[in-house]
Amino acid sequence: MEITRPRGTRDFLFEEMKKRKEVERTLKRVFETYGYHEIKTPIFEDLKLFTLKSGEEIVKQIYHFKDKANRDLALRPELTAPAARLYLNELRKHPKPIKMYYYGSCFRYERPQAGRFRQFWQFGCELMGAESPQAEAEVIALAVHCLRELGLKEYRLHIGHLGILRGLLEDAGIRGGSQDRIMGLIDKGDVQELKLHLERIEADENMKSLLLSIIGMEGGLGVLENVEKMVGGCEPALESIDDLRELIRLLDDFKVEDYNLDLGIARGLDYYTGIVFEIYVPSLGAQKQICGGGTYNLIELFSGEKIQSTGFAFGFDRLVAALKKQKDELFQFAKVFVAPVSDSTRPSAYRIVQELREEGIPSDVDLSGRKLRKILSYADHLNVEKVILVGERDLKEGKVTIKDMKTGSQELVEIDKIMEYLKEE
Amino acid sequence: MEITRPRGTRDFLFEEMKKRKEVERTLKRVFETYGYHEIKTPIFEDLKLFTLKSGEEIVKQIYHFKDKANRDLALRPELTAPAARLYLNELRKHPKPIKMYYYGSCFRYERPQAGRFRQFWQFGCELMGAESPQAEAEVIALAVHCLRELGLKEYRLHIGHLGILRGLLEDAGIRGGSQDRIMGLIDKGDVQELKLHLERIEADENMKSLLLSIIGMEGGLGVLENVEKMVGGCEPALESIDDLRELIRLLDDFKVEDYNLDLGIARGLDYYTGIVFEIYVPSLGAQKQICGGGTYNLIELFSGEKIQSTGFAFGFDRLVAALKKQKDELFQFAKVFVAPVSDSTRPSAYRIVQELREEGIPSDVDLSGRKLRKILSYADHLNVEKVILVGERDLKEGKVTIKDMKTGSQELVEIDKIMEYLKEE
Repeated sequence: MEITRPRGTRDFLFEEMKKRKEVERTLKRVFETYGYHEIKTPIFEDLKLFTLKSGEEIVKQIYHFKDKANRDLALRPELTAPAARLYLNELRKHPKPIKMYYYGSCFRYERPQAGRFRQFWQFGCELMGAESPQAEAEVIALAVHCLRELGLKEYRLHIGHLGILRGLLEDAGIRGGSQDRIMGLIDKGDVQELKLHLERIEADENMKSLLLSIIGMEGGLGVLENVEKMVGGCEPALESIDDLRELIRLLDDFKVEDYNLDLGIARGLDYYTGIVFEIYVPSLGAQKQICGGGTYNLIELFSGEKIQSTGFAFGFDRLVAALKKQKDELFQFAKVFVAPVSDSTRPSAYRIVQELREEGIPSDVDLSGRKLRKILSYADHLNVEKVILVGERDLKEGKVTIKDMKTGSQELVEIDKIMEYLKEE
Repeated sequence: MEITRPRGTRDFLFEEMKKRKEVERTLKRVFETYGYHEIKTPIFEDLKLFTLKSGEEIVKQIYHFKDKANRDLALRPELTAPAARLYLNELRKHPKPIKMYYYGSCFRYERPQAGRFRQFWQFGCELMGAESPQAEAEVIALAVHCLRELGLKEYRLHIGHLGILRGLLEDAGIRGGSQDRIMGLIDKGDVQELKLHLERIEADENMKSLLLSIIGMEGGLGVLENVEKMVGGCEPALESIDDLRELIRLLDDFKVEDYNLDLGIARGLDYYTGIVFEIYVPSLGAQKQICGGGTYNLIELFSGEKIQSTGFAFGFDRLVAALKKQKDELFQFAKVFVAPVSDSTRPSAYRIVQELREEGIPSDVDLSGRKLRKILSYADHLNVEKVILVGERDLKEGKVTIKDMKTGSQELVEIDKIMEYLKEE
């Protein structure tokens, strides 16, 4: 019988894992350079954690089940709610701000399609308890710094502020669920449905045209001057515009130069309160958003304790996809392969390979008892640089033959000097 | 409302994660030195994968659920079966041997107790398609090499061979389920129940006393001489003894010197076929087994294709526990903290911290707009080595004051020379 992996999931093989680990390693290094430290939370959580954050609707899109004690559990669909829970369970007394980052898999139950899987990975951070524009600037600087270190060439940073749209809607008497519905439609970019909805709720014509033009506004600082004139006396909107201006000033101090103001960013979820940002890689098409974040009040939602946080997450799979579009190196299994020329030289071959490994040189040896021709063909498949041929006659002189697999040239080397020889190359 | 993490799971915080990552990094490095490459399989699999491997009984001990399309899924309880599935789905045509390693979490539903959690981590490998004693020797050498690189001081490697016990039982006409039941009791170390079971099935008295003495045999090569005499004409047992002798000879070539032959190792599962080994750290008490492995025929069980594999896994949590008993270093959040002495010097503080980060120096900066006294107390909590005080007067001369948090001494340093100064220290 053939058992296959569950629908919508992936197996990662050697080359793919190597790429992913490189990206993981670089991100961890940069996050730690900014004083962030890693946390890890369980793969499943109390289902309530996610319905509280995202509403009962989320149940349709997640894996949830009862355990043997009839507890409602869910495979986590994202990592911000678990981080907030961890704060409440473990870190309440910790001096603020707290800087944490996470890397882990998340799960959603939806129809699998190109670039969307049922198990996917997020890499993100939360800066908890630092309610300040400089905290927001630093978080954005961190995201950009990561992409620079990864060598990602083509990306666009978009920054907005939820207070402008929410302020206008508030002023027009559109609150609560109706406001969230509108923000949701803006987030989806569904302008048709947005127009229909505004008609249905009989929104004021001026407000409607104002809203529709604001969500299209994008560009440099000029955007702020324009929108400032448009929102007139709407105080919360004006405050948000000032916040954005202050942030932009600070981004300069934090050495972030390339950005787009984008007043159409709405983020789907209603606990976001202020600055929001997203990063796009246009060549990824429908999956172009590789990063999203902003400032939010999730902990308050869970506990009443008012701890403002700023955070973001990379869609790790998309980030890897973007990097893979750019460059792909040749994958190497091991650097050196030690090949006994005959059975009598096997013990020496094993000793040589163990010495290479002691020195940290990735190396392999024949374990199958094959003839030399087959060994060489296997080594070739592994794409090794050098094969060390351990032959009886050479061995008597305390030597081995090292073959360069690229050039085909061979050289007789003393056993004591193998390491030296390999390092010289 | 307070949401807590699910029973039997853990959150890992900063210090703990740092330790775990160190161990992970070292293991990955050593495995790759041996020519192994990482794979990753999904968190959940088709339930059948595990019932096929371990019997329907396993269902009681695992998390399983139906997805929205009514598929029976299970959170993986271990990683060998997924690796075998991955081989069958993806790697059938790959030249053999195939060397793969994995690191990931597994799940079991059982009463949580000290050192046993419902989500736990395994780090292991599979060497597929190299049916040879040298493959077994190399795998054991790898496990030992890992422990040496991790600096684990006190551990004991036990090596056995299932063929001796199974051969004797076979000869005595005890086969199939009854044989597996006996091997299971030996694995558990439940001698009382084993005796009762042998009485119940009316086992031959000679065989019974032979079995009971063999499972207690442990030591150097002498063990093999003794058991050889005891098993008399039982061919399969004699062959297994020869296998063990050959392995021991090869372990010398692979530079493994400290081992105990232990004929009582039975491993719980019936697809093991030959050499088995376990590593213990006695100071861990009931959780002393940190590693287990051997040679098995799992792929055959799934598909009929006869691919012999050798593999092992570290119980990652136990390994970390063993290492933590040995040594614990002081945890540092960031190396350097940049403290603006007044609000006017904040922009310079941000620029300085960004330059340190560009150079890869883990550093932090005040983001809360606090007064200096509070900043210093926070920096002290983070256990940083140096605080860079950015004051107005110093700044005018292009300088900052660098305070050593251990000695309390301060020094005036030119801004251009901060990096040099930090690197000199």
